[in-house]
Amino acid sequence: MFCVTFLGTSAGTPTIERGMPAIAIKYEGELLLWDCGEGTQRQLMRYKVGYGSVNAIFITHPHLDHYLGVFGLLETLKMSSPSPKPLDIFIPKNIEFQNYPFIKLSKMKKGLLYLGKDFMVSAYPVKHCSGSYGLIFEENEKLKFNEEKAHGLGIKGKLFKEIQKKGMVKTPKGKILLGDISWKKPGRKIVYTGDCAPDSNTIEAARGADLLIHEGTFEASMKEEAAERLHSTVEDAALIAKKAGAKKLAITHVSCRYTNTSILLEESQNIFPNTIIAKDGLEVIL
Amino acid sequence: MFCVTFLGTSAGTPTIERGMPAIAIKYEGELLLWDCGEGTQRQLMRYKVGYGSVNAIFITHPHLDHYLGVFGLLETLKMSSPSPKPLDIFIPKNIEFQNYPFIKLSKMKKGLLYLGKDFMVSAYPVKHCSGSYGLIFEENEKLKFNEEKAHGLGIKGKLFKEIQKKGMVKTPKGKILLGDISWKKPGRKIVYTGDCAPDSNTIEAARGADLLIHEGTFEASMKEEAAERLHSTVEDAALIAKKAGAKKLAITHVSCRYTNTSILLEESQNIFPNTIIAKDGLEVIL
Repeated sequence: MFCVTFLGTSAGTPTIERGMPAIAIKYEGELLLWDCGEGTQRQLMRYKVGYGSVNAIFITHPHLDHYLGVFGLLETLKMSSPSPKPLDIFIPKNIEFQNYPFIKLSKMKKGLLYLGKDFMVSAYPVKHCSGSYGLIFEENEKLKFNEEKAHGLGIKGKLFKEIQKKGMVKTPKGKILLGDISWKKPGRKIVYTGDCAPDSNTIEAARGADLLIHEGTFEASMKEEAAERLHSTVEDAALIAKKAGAKKLAITHVSCRYTNTSILLEESQNIFPNTIIAKDGLEVIL
Repeated sequence: MFCVTFLGTSAGTPTIERGMPAIAIKYEGELLLWDCGEGTQRQLMRYKVGYGSVNAIFITHPHLDHYLGVFGLLETLKMSSPSPKPLDIFIPKNIEFQNYPFIKLSKMKKGLLYLGKDFMVSAYPVKHCSGSYGLIFEENEKLKFNEEKAHGLGIKGKLFKEIQKKGMVKTPKGKILLGDISWKKPGRKIVYTGDCAPDSNTIEAARGADLLIHEGTFEASMKEEAAERLHSTVEDAALIAKKAGAKKLAITHVSCRYTNTSILLEESQNIFPNTIIAKDGLEVIL
């Protein structure tokens, strides 16, 4: 199970249809939150993600609309269980979260932040306010066997374990190297920009990503307003996705002026066809 | 226009159906919020109350689930307008609301808090945590004329203004007193307990109220748990409404364990028939 659920896709101000920024990433048994705007705990319930199982929360930048929901979620976790499970919180601001002994608070910073069972999350700087970061989820690469070839070379049963451990085994047919019968499946990658002006850092971070989640607050004609506020247009987002060679682009952080997003989709798809405009509750299965 | 809209009716933890505590009171052109839990700004949009026109916010007690939404609402007001309209906030806790020059912050306390154009809001202490208050909305009494009688006595046109000003007028038919041709219509009254154990203070406050909004977190069989946590059962709420001689009872702050509230309604109506169990979006027209 590797699924991204968009919990809130609005920019700054919520609307009836769009909640405040938050993205849930479910990978095997683990659950991460990327941003946690006001109302996130209720969105977790509404979209059946489950609020009690969050392992870690990552706040991309110190604007209230991206982290106010942490306070509500923590209260609910505290009330729901006598001993809530440990929860890592990464945030680029000194905030006092009092009376929550189950949390571990860390400063958001560039580089590796979190090691999951089979993945890692790291951050890279983006251009928005001071202390703004994009996030990278990278699945570990996995060793895959060419079983037919392995069997043909006499590798069976316990020998698979041995060759993984030692890198080679000796058989009646000679010395077999691990590389002869296996290949490495690259891990999948998701990149999320948080709020940002278009940035070459994102091109680097999202190189070959399976999914780039880029903010796209405005349509192309509002390029100046976007630049002034250090936000992106959907064209900006699409160009970044194209340059990075991402496989799929999901645009989020949509200004409340767009009740109809067809212009945003069209402008982005003109540049990067495999675009979706995220909406609350949207699930992307990887 | 005199309307109460229940924006959030949950207790402690939100559910898919119930948001965090908040009640909107619309009286003529003015809009008040009683409590402002997480997500209130979005509930104001969802239920078409309009977030931009709030005149005053009253927080009944210093638990986060009753005031977290203030932060989000203030951010939105600040972003939505270069000069948001003045906003009074009454809260029983020292909280820093920074960078909002349009608000006037006051300590919640017993007694008169706010004078509207034709009403006042006051607070009375209730038993919950330290600094817990119930709220009373009282419409001013209004002078009503018995026009038929007035016309019969020769009071017409400008004489109505004169008799209001002086309390009497002289006419060819003699001296007419204001009381001879008018009566006073008592103002309507709404009382809201916030979170509380059942309390004789509420009986006094809600004497003859048109609407008593009482918390009713639990069913009657959970009386001990309610007492321990200084909350009320629906039976407690109904008994208070009955003793106060309230005209209507709306029960809110419903525990998330009740997806079906029929037991709550039944238990309350056995004692106080004119009960409703509030739900999000419910409007009560007075």
